[in-house]
Amino acid sequence: MSLDDKIEKDYQSVPPHGGNLVRAAMEYGLAPQDFLDFSANINPLGPSPLVMEALRANLWQICHYPDPDCRELKSALAEHLGIETPCLLVGNGASELIYLLARVFSFRRVLIPAPTFSEYGLAVRAAGGKVNYFFLNPSPGFPFPLEEVLRQLPEVDALFLCNPNNPTGRLVPRQELEALLEAAAAYRAMVIVDEAFMDFVADPQSHTLLSLAGRHPRLILLYSLTKILAIPGLRLGVLAARPEVVKALDRARDPWSVNALAQVAGVVGLQDREYIEATRDLVAREREFLFREFSSLPGLRPFPGAANFLLVDITGTRFAAGELVRLLGHRGILVRNCANFPGLSEGYIRVAVKRREENLRLLEALREVL
Amino acid sequence: MSLDDKIEKDYQSVPPHGGNLVRAAMEYGLAPQDFLDFSANINPLGPSPLVMEALRANLWQICHYPDPDCRELKSALAEHLGIETPCLLVGNGASELIYLLARVFSFRRVLIPAPTFSEYGLAVRAAGGKVNYFFLNPSPGFPFPLEEVLRQLPEVDALFLCNPNNPTGRLVPRQELEALLEAAAAYRAMVIVDEAFMDFVADPQSHTLLSLAGRHPRLILLYSLTKILAIPGLRLGVLAARPEVVKALDRARDPWSVNALAQVAGVVGLQDREYIEATRDLVAREREFLFREFSSLPGLRPFPGAANFLLVDITGTRFAAGELVRLLGHRGILVRNCANFPGLSEGYIRVAVKRREENLRLLEALREVL
Repeated sequence: MSLDDKIEKDYQSVPPHGGNLVRAAMEYGLAPQDFLDFSANINPLGPSPLVMEALRANLWQICHYPDPDCRELKSALAEHLGIETPCLLVGNGASELIYLLARVFSFRRVLIPAPTFSEYGLAVRAAGGKVNYFFLNPSPGFPFPLEEVLRQLPEVDALFLCNPNNPTGRLVPRQELEALLEAAAAYRAMVIVDEAFMDFVADPQSHTLLSLAGRHPRLILLYSLTKILAIPGLRLGVLAARPEVVKALDRARDPWSVNALAQVAGVVGLQDREYIEATRDLVAREREFLFREFSSLPGLRPFPGAANFLLVDITGTRFAAGELVRLLGHRGILVRNCANFPGLSEGYIRVAVKRREENLRLLEALREVL
Repeated sequence: MSLDDKIEKDYQSVPPHGGNLVRAAMEYGLAPQDFLDFSANINPLGPSPLVMEALRANLWQICHYPDPDCRELKSALAEHLGIETPCLLVGNGASELIYLLARVFSFRRVLIPAPTFSEYGLAVRAAGGKVNYFFLNPSPGFPFPLEEVLRQLPEVDALFLCNPNNPTGRLVPRQELEALLEAAAAYRAMVIVDEAFMDFVADPQSHTLLSLAGRHPRLILLYSLTKILAIPGLRLGVLAARPEVVKALDRARDPWSVNALAQVAGVVGLQDREYIEATRDLVAREREFLFREFSSLPGLRPFPGAANFLLVDITGTRFAAGELVRLLGHRGILVRNCANFPGLSEGYIRVAVKRREENLRLLEALREVL
């Protein structure tokens, strides 16, 4: 069975992503709202109160078409990200933009580190392309193998890279990314860097490629407001690239893909700097707390991560991931089974960093089960 | 200049669709909420109060991923439409589904009546296909030329058909559609029938192809909840076809394209039968009223239409459409300039049917201007 077939198969049997409360409700016989969901990597503070208030006040907007140009949101993003509006494309979640990229560029062959977010590979395959996975080495914590990637780069049209990486939480050092971009320019490959979780990193400024986005001809940057603003139900993703790339992508999709309420949430959420700062502080503190607590539990080995989630090696317990996920699920707690990440196995789970009282409930349930 | 180039050019200069309040606000110096918008064909009653209430109560859902399978909504749709769930695909508006269709089927050449909704042609071209437009004859009211279409059908992969048609409001008789499907089966062309405005027709049962959707191998039916539920800002479209078609389309897009609030609105809106009935009554009454009033105004010639809008020939006035649209726009009233519909010209505007007091304000403004 090829790796592609394996992914296809796993896609059927294991929920392909975290955060599927409807599926969980059916499986565990609880109501969707009764779960503590550590399986989706969303801001643990939930949506900003300012965003909730703005949504209530602007609910009337649903009876008008959304602005197809997302003018107000693009202005807010331009200021927040320091990128000019012609270099910005807003999407119905970053995942719309990933599928759009794959089909407009018609990549024949792309390079993808594994494990990583599975939609890159699925989008490329849906558009008729092929995927070369390169497998990150678990024992030193899944570092990015720059030399190996540089060796393979001439053979592909594009490289997809999630930074910090989902599900490992690992950051690629900025100088390695710059080396990669230099090589990509020589070989004519596109480098697509997904910074969906960069807002949760303690010092995003020293890691983000924002200053190059819209300037470097081979760089396409993806950014998500879904995670940091805790609005996955509304969907809001962003792409930054050279204006000609943005234009080509925009013409290839329907005009109203970004709904009116997502645009409202984005504009207001970006203004709430206090909330974003508070999120970063909370995540840093609780990530450290969870890391320490997981390390002290029998058979669990968390990987140090920079984002709002932790990958945990559970091979030291007597459980496979599917089993552990089910035992916790029956207790109303969802964690992510990593078995269907190419490059991982039944030996790993991924856990979102949440607020202290929620983290304590997870730890209690884990202690019971283990 | 080819017709495709003309569309391209018009797409730049004239708003490509109605309902763009942000653009109107910039052009006329008013706030978006100050316009009376007759340029978008939305339910004149606005969203059902039950839907608004449900959205307020379920705003918390934005912090969870939407159900990628739209299970609850599909069950509600299955009951409402009489189509089994494996034959249904829900989209981020019907326009997502139009673009999805064009690229998954990779139509090389499609047949499109003109004038009609412009996204069919744009989607086919975005996916690399070519469009044969066939021009409907204005003088008898843009009837569907069955014989002509049957003659051209062997040369194309698909036919797009909006029924009732936007912007003419004209219905294709059901027996003609059946003849078309029979021929399509022989020639292996797909027939894509967009019933986005069927809910506004006085007797939808005698015109809809719902009973064949999911059964006939060459039929793909599009349906929109955006219009009847007045939720264009949330986006909600539906496609009905054979299960294998639905599956292929679903695999080719990102998993979360339908946001959580649109799913809530759909489930609740479909239950509000009274509201749908009241809409149909209102539209029938006001369409007749507007038709009569337009006919009595100097130089206006409305076409009899079956939907919630009327196409109006304004060549008898001293104004081109762009001019009339601007004069009304400065008075806070938006109507649709039809100049960028292939097959129409500066001699036509399209006007949504709204509530009596709003229609009276439009008529008053028209009288002033004319």
